[in-house]
This record gives sequence, C-alpha cells and structure tokens, in this order.
Amino acid sequence: MIGNAVKTLLLNNEDSFLIPDEKVAHVMDTNPLNHALLVLTKVRYTRIPVLNREGEFVGLIGLSDIVNAMFDLTEIDPDNLTDLCVRDVMDTEVDTITQPYDIEYILHLSVDSPFIPVVDSDNHFAGIVTRKEILKSVNHLVHTLENEYTLTEKKQPERKIG
Amino acid sequence: MIGNAVKTLLLNNEDSFLIPDEKVAHVMDTNPLNHALLVLTKVRYTRIPVLNREGEFVGLIGLSDIVNAMFDLTEIDPDNLTDLCVRDVMDTEVDTITQPYDIEYILHLSVDSPFIPVVDSDNHFAGIVTRKEILKSVNHLVHTLENEYTLTEKKQPERKIG
Repeated sequence: MIGNAVKTLLLNNEDSFLIPDEKVAHVMDTNPLNHALLVLTKVRYTRIPVLNREGEFVGLIGLSDIVNAMFDLTEIDPDNLTDLCVRDVMDTEVDTITQPYDIEYILHLSVDSPFIPVVDSDNHFAGIVTRKEILKSVNHLVHTLENEYTLTEKKQPERKIG
Repeated sequence: MIGNAVKTLLLNNEDSFLIPDEKVAHVMDTNPLNHALLVLTKVRYTRIPVLNREGEFVGLIGLSDIVNAMFDLTEIDPDNLTDLCVRDVMDTEVDTITQPYDIEYILHLSVDSPFIPVVDSDNHFAGIVTRKEILKSVNHLVHTLENEYTLTEKKQPERKIG
C-alpha cells in the first residue's frame, strides 16, 4: 500500500501523464514490416503500439522484432520486409492500464516497461504513460515531500534475537 | 534538495544499482557497423556503450543510428554496414556519473535517459545504472515511507490574496 500523502504528491502531475493517442506513432497490424521499419526509425521510441482496424490496442512492435525477422540465419534478407506483416512479429503479451490511474500498479509495471499503453473500457487505444513522466513525478515527490511534511520515525516493534 | 529520510530509503537498494561493465554488452569505437548491429539485435538495450582501446567510455550507439546510416535516401544500402564504423555514427553527448552516487543527480538524469553510464575517476567504464533499478528503489520508497514514518503536514505560510 502507498500512503495518501505520497499518492497525492505522485499524482500531482497526473494531467500530463498521458501522451494521447494522436501524438503517439503507431502502426496497423496489417502493415508490411518495411512500413513499420520506416516509422520506427523516425520516432524516439524503440517499440510502438499496434492497432487493428477498429482502433483497438493489439500489441507492440520494436526495431529488434523487425531486424530479427530480417536475419535469415546469418544473412540479412530484405525480402522478409515485404513478405511479413506487423502482426506476424508483434508482441501481444502487453499489460495495459485504464483511467483513473492506479499509481501503485503504474509504478509496478514501470519497473519492466519503458511505457505503458492506456486503453479505454472498450480496449480502444487512448495513449501511453511513459517512464519519463513517471520519473518527473518521482522527482517532484522526493523534492517536495520533506518541504511539506515533517517525517517522524515510527517506533519499530523490537525483534527478538536468538 | 532531497531530505535525508527519502534519500536513505532511495539508496536502500544502492548495492544493486550498478550493472557492472562485464555484464553490459558494449562495442568498440573502431568496430564496423555490421558488428554493432549483430550485438544490438542480441541484447535487450536499444543503445549500448561504446569504449575505446583504453577501456574509456566514449559514447552510445543504438539500432536507430545504424538503421539511419543504412538508409541511402529511400533504399537500404547494406554496404554502409561494412564501410562505416561505430565512431562514425555514435552519440558522444552523454552524461555520466561516478560513485558514490548522487541520487538527486541520478533521478534528474533518469527523466531523459533509459540508463546512465558509470565511469571511474579516469573515465574508465564501470557499468550502468538503469531506470529499472531506479524505479525498483522508488517502489521501495513509496511502499515503505508511510510504514516507517509518520507524516505531519507543515503549516504553510499564509499567502496574501489581492
């Protein structure tokens, strides 16, 4: 459990958590890999969301997925770039979050994910929450906490030794 | 300024902050790009450190740097992979840190960098501190703080209105 004071300070920046869908580069599950390669080389994220025709979030794809697919044993085979499409190589095992944010769950997921996709109740893609924004909130928290609160150590129950 | 209680809790995990050099994939500044491409497709980081012959940290290189160099206007020219070497495309504008850690500076850098290279006083590469480890510490902090401390709101000086 995260206490209320910490939760409030972490969510201070909440309105800027979401990078909305229209600002996040994405590809469609039916796009050929060469299109995804072009998009991925132009954006700063190394994995981007994959949507289906209905606008639902269906997975993530990264440069390494594409480069791996290009490698035909030891040689690079650029034919794979047109023969395969995004849904053939994308990662579908991706945790998503919904609003209102559960900051405890977001902080937990952020340990393993550079960003977390946000979906609405119908699984339509709404945007992403990034480690960058989370770490901005953490900076705010740690710089503000002891300015706004006096911290008094609680008496710990004594532990028996031996 | 970060207060002492918060600093202590954040540095609780300090010993595991550093992923030491021998566990971090890296390339040499004189390696051809096809070698760097092979290394980058095999590791989970999208940028890796570049060292010179003396073991000094000289920059970072990522898949996107290499893929950009492969693009000859609109077509992929794989010849660039053998003609160019790592130092031709690496990023040399990289902030580094030294031990003992300044957690305030680390948290500040982590907003913009997925990991921060650690060097010794002679600029020899010692390893990296990752957002993952930092966020583990943050999780520890936020879950522990209000268990171990009682937080009392400080009286804020009243602000004159009008």
